[in-house]
Amino acid sequence: MERIKPHTLSGFMELLPAQQLQFERIAEIIRSSYARYGFTPLDTPLIEASDVLLAKGGGETEKQIYRFSKGDADLSLRFDLTVPLAKYVALHYGDLSFPFRRYQIGKVYRGERAQRGRFREFYQADIDVIGDGALDVVNDAEIPAIIYTVFSRLGLRRFRIRINNRKILNGFYAMLGLAEKSGDIMRTVDKLEKIGADKVRAVLIDDLSLTEAQADEILKFIAIRGTNDEVLAALEDYRARSAVFDEGLDELATVAKYLGAFGVPQENFAVDLTIARGLDYYTGTVYETTLTDHPEIGSVCSGGRYDDLAAYYTDKKLPGVGISIGLTRLFYVLGEQGMLDASAPAAPADALILPMTDDLSPAAALATQLRAAGLRVQLYTEKKKFKAKMSYADRLAVPYVLFLGEDEIKERKISCKNMATGEQVKETAEELIKRLCAAVSEYGGRPPIVG
Amino acid sequence: MERIKPHTLSGFMELLPAQQLQFERIAEIIRSSYARYGFTPLDTPLIEASDVLLAKGGGETEKQIYRFSKGDADLSLRFDLTVPLAKYVALHYGDLSFPFRRYQIGKVYRGERAQRGRFREFYQADIDVIGDGALDVVNDAEIPAIIYTVFSRLGLRRFRIRINNRKILNGFYAMLGLAEKSGDIMRTVDKLEKIGADKVRAVLIDDLSLTEAQADEILKFIAIRGTNDEVLAALEDYRARSAVFDEGLDELATVAKYLGAFGVPQENFAVDLTIARGLDYYTGTVYETTLTDHPEIGSVCSGGRYDDLAAYYTDKKLPGVGISIGLTRLFYVLGEQGMLDASAPAAPADALILPMTDDLSPAAALATQLRAAGLRVQLYTEKKKFKAKMSYADRLAVPYVLFLGEDEIKERKISCKNMATGEQVKETAEELIKRLCAAVSEYGGRPPIVG
Repeated sequence: MERIKPHTLSGFMELLPAQQLQFERIAEIIRSSYARYGFTPLDTPLIEASDVLLAKGGGETEKQIYRFSKGDADLSLRFDLTVPLAKYVALHYGDLSFPFRRYQIGKVYRGERAQRGRFREFYQADIDVIGDGALDVVNDAEIPAIIYTVFSRLGLRRFRIRINNRKILNGFYAMLGLAEKSGDIMRTVDKLEKIGADKVRAVLIDDLSLTEAQADEILKFIAIRGTNDEVLAALEDYRARSAVFDEGLDELATVAKYLGAFGVPQENFAVDLTIARGLDYYTGTVYETTLTDHPEIGSVCSGGRYDDLAAYYTDKKLPGVGISIGLTRLFYVLGEQGMLDASAPAAPADALILPMTDDLSPAAALATQLRAAGLRVQLYTEKKKFKAKMSYADRLAVPYVLFLGEDEIKERKISCKNMATGEQVKETAEELIKRLCAAVSEYGGRPPIVG
Repeated sequence: MERIKPHTLSGFMELLPAQQLQFERIAEIIRSSYARYGFTPLDTPLIEASDVLLAKGGGETEKQIYRFSKGDADLSLRFDLTVPLAKYVALHYGDLSFPFRRYQIGKVYRGERAQRGRFREFYQADIDVIGDGALDVVNDAEIPAIIYTVFSRLGLRRFRIRINNRKILNGFYAMLGLAEKSGDIMRTVDKLEKIGADKVRAVLIDDLSLTEAQADEILKFIAIRGTNDEVLAALEDYRARSAVFDEGLDELATVAKYLGAFGVPQENFAVDLTIARGLDYYTGTVYETTLTDHPEIGSVCSGGRYDDLAAYYTDKKLPGVGISIGLTRLFYVLGEQGMLDASAPAAPADALILPMTDDLSPAAALATQLRAAGLRVQLYTEKKKFKAKMSYADRLAVPYVLFLGEDEIKERKISCKNMATGEQVKETAEELIKRLCAAVSEYGGRPPIVG
């Protein structure tokens, strides 16, 4: 038979079983965290009509889109989860209740240039809260709590949710008479960490034709640092010179005010006047999340407030606030940094039964009993030598191996070997179940990331 | 602004929130059932190189495939989960341990003619056990237990796992000197339920040129009915006339022998000599699962034993056994039949907090406390009238509404209304958490399907 060389497309993540189990645990913690905050799961098609998906048109993304025909239909694969959400809310508006809170964890597609750590198929894990006409700023205050819950349940400790408000930036640039240049200025300021304050100042003056006074005002402004209270106090000095600025400052103050009640420790949160996020979409609060020890990774969870989700589809005004975790990239960089807990069991089963008799009925009955107790159990079925069986158990990295031979069956007991410690005990099924359930609950609760 | 009419492609299921929650519960029960049997999760790309995906070539499926170019690449969307599994196992052979047990729940694509209840994007939920060179028939015996666990945990009682063995059929037709016509005969016999025995006999004689004696032998054979023991006893009468038949009968007897130990009740299982499944793929045990009260739905879980998973990619012989649930179609027909439990809470939150004060800090703190206890909680944030808030709670169908006003805050209590009974109690946060966790565990454990 002529054979085809099997391969997986470049830019498409395909994991080996142990890694896949780690990935699933991370995804499940994100999912259940989102669910705790009362978000409802959505699942929209991966394929949409191109006119719907590209309603917004243009932009850098368009070149990257997987677009194709099937029969008469012009189709595209989704490139984010936001456009499908906008379509969904506009389409099902009459059937939804607002505020509408949804999470979606799904694959999206961008035909980027293939390079290490860049993916063409990747998971995003998004939440959004959508209001009908209006949406209270308290929702902006709840978002950092969700980010905090997700990352601390994953096992991370040293991370910071950085927050800003676009109205503060827009208002501030308006005060300086620079409203029209605010986009270019924000793009420049965004490079502060990369190029430093001196170069930012030079670009502002040389390339954007700001006066030295204006540039110095901007550098002074974005240098505002301190505790949240100190930053908010410093911002008060700019009050009453721009209505937009004042509105942004009030929003930021509200977000900061509710942080404690929403359970976010001060050390995991910082007002940061340098962040702006995508320039044409967000209109109020913006979020970035960085790992304190790994600033080079960039933001691992970003988002913000927008005025109008679905203007391309409906005249209903639908303001919202949301965040997105680039799950595939996050998993990749955590792996690169050695931050995935290798000591956490990543076996497909909690226990592997090795039958030592020809008749497998007792072993099958034991498997059935353990599974009914909720344990993940594999019955080894092949007629191999003992050594081959144990080597299989080793390779699966299964935490417990259960031996069932004539002696055990006669005594109505099971020999259970803890593969990590080598310890072996002979016990009844009831004792075994109790002990394994406790062990599983212990290692199942261990966070997957070493923060 | 020019607006695009939002729409979702025909043949693509997109659910409203309450339905989506039902769907997720069903998917999660399937997933966790598969996991209990020691299967490892896999996630392969939705897009594969066309030469890889279509290595087997030809066939009815090829016309239905979503195939397109991106740059120089000839790409296709997967149309099942079996071909990607074959690719995966061939590609990662050296990194896997055999028997290799994997489950995968994912979307697949087939550009079928659009019609009610037919989907172009749909979920399959598959398990397969792959051996390296050989795979013991005990694995075939475990499969009905997995099917039984999945469907009984979903809430179904009246279903039957029907099993046959292709070797028995092939051996039997060989006995009649009809080996070369066995494919056509099986296709005809497969229609027995639809067209009846008389028409089957007519087709066998008129169209396939069988003798009357041959046709009668076949009808007699496929009419074998009774308990598993009775059917097996009747099949013993044919023993020793075909080596293939005898092998198949031994396999079937082994499967039947272990059923009890694997926890499958006799009434949910039947040897059925009329089923054959896909004619060019399965080589031994075959499975179908039908709902006793809804035979018109057809099989809701099918599969079987195959000799060689990945012959198109590798010279390694990789026999396996697997089953597939067409999840999207199953969900659709269960909905059509009114079998989805409408009484099960399908709200995105277990409790909705309605704050009755301007300062939301106490309400936010309560939400944080309840969420830390694992409850799914939404804080209502909008400044609306009481009636609008209650109407929102009604529309979400949230089981509990929590009121927090000045009185409650002073007394350090919460007023909790059970929305199903109308009953309202004022209690401490600790009492509330205990009661809600118990309620959630009760309704969370209720099966999603009314069997």
